[in-house]
Amino acid sequence: MSKTLKVSVIGAGSAQFSLGIVKDLCLTKGLDGSHVSFMDIDEDRLDMIYKLATRYSQQLESDMTFDKTTDRRASLEDADFVLNAAYVLGHVVEAQMRQRAAEKYGYYHTGGQFGTYHQLQLMLDVAQDMEKVCPDAWLIQSGNPVFDGCTLMTRETSIKVCGLCHGHYGYREIAETIGLDPDRVTWQAPGLNHNIWLTHFIYDGKDAYPLIDEWIATKGEEYWRTHVAKRTHDAQMSRGAVNQYHMYGLFPIGDTVRRGGWWYHTDIETKKRWYGEPWGGPDTHLARPYFVQTLEERIAEMTRWANDPKTDMVKVVGRENTREQIVPIIDGLVNNKEGYFQVNVPNHGALKGLPDDLVVEVPAIVNQKGIQPVQVRALPPKIMIEQILPDWLETERELLAFKTGDRSMLLHSVLNHHQTKSYDQAVAILDELMNMPEVQEIEDWEKMTRIVDHYSFPAEL
Amino acid sequence: MSKTLKVSVIGAGSAQFSLGIVKDLCLTKGLDGSHVSFMDIDEDRLDMIYKLATRYSQQLESDMTFDKTTDRRASLEDADFVLNAAYVLGHVVEAQMRQRAAEKYGYYHTGGQFGTYHQLQLMLDVAQDMEKVCPDAWLIQSGNPVFDGCTLMTRETSIKVCGLCHGHYGYREIAETIGLDPDRVTWQAPGLNHNIWLTHFIYDGKDAYPLIDEWIATKGEEYWRTHVAKRTHDAQMSRGAVNQYHMYGLFPIGDTVRRGGWWYHTDIETKKRWYGEPWGGPDTHLARPYFVQTLEERIAEMTRWANDPKTDMVKVVGRENTREQIVPIIDGLVNNKEGYFQVNVPNHGALKGLPDDLVVEVPAIVNQKGIQPVQVRALPPKIMIEQILPDWLETERELLAFKTGDRSMLLHSVLNHHQTKSYDQAVAILDELMNMPEVQEIEDWEKMTRIVDHYSFPAEL
Repeated sequence: MSKTLKVSVIGAGSAQFSLGIVKDLCLTKGLDGSHVSFMDIDEDRLDMIYKLATRYSQQLESDMTFDKTTDRRASLEDADFVLNAAYVLGHVVEAQMRQRAAEKYGYYHTGGQFGTYHQLQLMLDVAQDMEKVCPDAWLIQSGNPVFDGCTLMTRETSIKVCGLCHGHYGYREIAETIGLDPDRVTWQAPGLNHNIWLTHFIYDGKDAYPLIDEWIATKGEEYWRTHVAKRTHDAQMSRGAVNQYHMYGLFPIGDTVRRGGWWYHTDIETKKRWYGEPWGGPDTHLARPYFVQTLEERIAEMTRWANDPKTDMVKVVGRENTREQIVPIIDGLVNNKEGYFQVNVPNHGALKGLPDDLVVEVPAIVNQKGIQPVQVRALPPKIMIEQILPDWLETERELLAFKTGDRSMLLHSVLNHHQTKSYDQAVAILDELMNMPEVQEIEDWEKMTRIVDHYSFPAEL
Repeated sequence: MSKTLKVSVIGAGSAQFSLGIVKDLCLTKGLDGSHVSFMDIDEDRLDMIYKLATRYSQQLESDMTFDKTTDRRASLEDADFVLNAAYVLGHVVEAQMRQRAAEKYGYYHTGGQFGTYHQLQLMLDVAQDMEKVCPDAWLIQSGNPVFDGCTLMTRETSIKVCGLCHGHYGYREIAETIGLDPDRVTWQAPGLNHNIWLTHFIYDGKDAYPLIDEWIATKGEEYWRTHVAKRTHDAQMSRGAVNQYHMYGLFPIGDTVRRGGWWYHTDIETKKRWYGEPWGGPDTHLARPYFVQTLEERIAEMTRWANDPKTDMVKVVGRENTREQIVPIIDGLVNNKEGYFQVNVPNHGALKGLPDDLVVEVPAIVNQKGIQPVQVRALPPKIMIEQILPDWLETERELLAFKTGDRSMLLHSVLNHHQTKSYDQAVAILDELMNMPEVQEIEDWEKMTRIVDHYSFPAEL
C-alpha cells in the first residue's frame, strides 16, 4: 500500500456495520494504516461510531486514522473506497407504512417497499457525487435494494459498483443442518441479489444434493415440527425453502427463501406453516419489530460503550475477523491478496439470458486486476422463467418509474401486489402512502407525482 | 397460377370460417380454380361444409374443386396452404372447466385456459405432419392461441408459419366512434397477438391521437353511460380500453382490451364498469354463453341451408369478399398481388427487445417474395415492461411446461392467477381440472402429469 488508503463510510451511523469494517481493517495486515471517513446525517450516531472506532484502534495500537462529517462530498474527497450502508426512510417510517396498509386495507405486512424510491435516489446521489469527487473509487453497496440500486448506478454513472449481501452464506446453514462440515462444501449459487439458486453443492468431491433429498425424506418433518428459530432470518431449511426447491428445481439460498411467491406470505398462519416458529420468518408483524428492537438494543449497548471511557473495547468487540466480504475484497484489490467472493456486479455475459447492464450476483475472483466475475453456466429455464426474469422485469419497472416519475407505474406496482383486491383500493392506498408526511418531506419526492401522458411516437427501449 | 393450388382446411367444421375461405377464393381472380380439401374429425360438420362449398361454387360457375376427409395426412398431401382453424376441447368442455372453477373455488369466469395444452399439441402435430407431407406449404394459423402456438411451431418445426387474427380492425372502431372515416386512417399497432398497441393513428396526414383525447374528454362519459353493445366483443371504446390507454400510454387495440390486468376482470359488476352493458365485454358468464349460442344458431342455419337443395347459396352467403386476410395473403404469395397485412410471424428483429424466434404481430408486405415483416419502431419502455415482456414470459412458461410435462409449472400458473387465494386452493383446483374425464380422455394428456425432479447441472436456456 503506497499511499494512505481512504475509505468513506456513508451512513456510518449503521454502527455495527461501521465497527465491523474498522475491526477488519485493523486486523488486516497491509490495511491497518488506512484512513476511515465516517459520514452520516445523524450527528449523535456519528459521534458514537467515531469514539468507538478511535478507541478500538488505539487499544489495538493500530495506525488507523478517522474523521467524521455530515458533509457527504467532504467525506468522498480522495476516497479510494466508498461503502454505502445508508437507509433513508428508516425502520420506523417503514413500519408506519406497513401499519397503514394493514389497518385500512387489510394487507399483511407490506407497504414498506415505497421506501425504495428514496433509497434509489440516495444511491444515485452518492454515485453522482463520486463522479465529481472521486471518479476512480470503488463503490461497495451494502444498503438495500442492492439489485435495483447497483443496476441504477451502473446505468446512470461511470462509477465502479459492487453490491454485497450476506445471503449466500445460506449454503453453510444447509450443510450444518444436514450434518456436513460447511468448510468442506464446494458450492455455487448465482442469480440476482435475494434471488440466488444452488446450482452446485459438492461435498468431498461428490454431488451432495442427494444428501439434501435424503434429509428432507427422513428428517424434514421432524425438523419442521420441532425446530424453533433463534434468529428471525433462520429459514434456510424451512418447509417454505424446501417447497421452493421442489417447485423450482434448485435450492433457494439465503434471502431468496423470503421471496418465492405470494402464497408463502398471505398471513401469519401461512407464514408459520412455511417458515416455522416463533416468528414465521423475518417478514412478519412478529419478526420485524423484534428484529428492529434487537438492532436498537445493539445501538444502545454500543452507545453505553462509547459513553463509558473505561469500556475494554477489544474485549467487547473482539479481535476475530468478521465474515464480511468488504475488507477482504479491498485487500484483494489493493494488495493483490487474491480471493473468491460472491458479488453483485454488471452482468456482461456472466449469467446468460440477462442484459449486460443488469447487476447480477455471481462468484468473482478479486485481485489487483479487479473484481472479475466467473461466467457461470446458465440457470435452468424453469428458474429463469419463473423467478429470475420476472424479478428482472419488476426491477426494470421500478427503475423506469423512478426515472420517469410516472405515477401510473407506481399504481401498476400496487395493482400487481397479490393482496390488492381492486383497482379502487390500489388508487386509495397509493394516495394515502404518498401523502404521508414522512414521505412528503423527502426532497424531490414530488417528482413521483407527475403523470406522464401518452406518447404516440415512442422512444427506444 | 401454373398448377392447381391446393388449400387444406384443418378443422373445416368451423363452418363460417371455411365458407368464408371458399367465398373469397371463388371471388378472387387467379385463385378460383383452386382445390380445397376439408378435414375435420366431425363427419357431420364435414359433410355440411362440403355440400355448402360445392353448391356455392357451382352456382357462381367457379372452377373450384373440393374434397373432404377425416384423415389429416391425406388432406395435407400436396397442399400449398394449410389453414388451421381447429379447436380441440371445444366450447362445451371449456364452459365445464369454468363452471367447476367458479362453483367450487370462487373464480370468476376462468379455467378455460387449461384447454391450451391440447390446442398446442394439435398445432404441433399438424406442423410436424406438414414437415413430412408438404414441407414447403405455408401454414396459416387461425385457431387460438395464435401467439403461443405459432411460436411453438416456429421453434419445433421448419414449417413457414403465419398467424392471423381479427383484432387489429379495432382501429376502425376507434375511427368510427369518434367520427372519422376508417378508410382514411393511417395506423400501426404492433406487439404480440392479443397484445397490440396503437403507435400511429394518422388522419389526413395529421396525428389523430388528440382527436381521441378530445372525444374522451367531451364525449366519453356520455358514451359509457348510454352505449349498449350489439356484439359481445364490442369493447374497443369502453371505459376499460381508455383506462388502459391512460395507464400504459398507447391505445390498446382489439382483443388487447380484453386483457390489461386482473383488476378489470374480478366479477360481473367490475366487468360492466369497465366493458359496459349488457355483457361486460366478451369474457363474462353472460357474454360467453350468448357468444357460443350465436355460433350454434349460425351452425344450425347453415345446416338447414345444406339440407335444403333449394337454398339460393349465393343469396344467403353473398358475393362480397369477406374482411379476412387469408385469401388476399394467398393471392399475394401466389399471384404477386402485393398487399399490406397484419400478421403474426417470427420476430427476427421486427420488434425490438424480443427474441428472434418469438412470433410477433407486426405489419408485413406480402408478395411473391414472401411475407416480409416491416421493422417497426420499438414500443415504449412502459408498454414493453408492463405488457409485452410479462406476456412473453407467460408464453415461455407455458411452452416450457408443455415441452417438459412439468406439472409444477401448471401449479405455478394457477398460483399466478390473481383470484387464487392460497397454495392449497391451487393444488386442489389443478387436481380437479386435470382429472376431468373430458380432459383425461385426450391422448397424450398423461404427459402433463409427470413431475420433473430437480436438476443441479442445468441445461442451457
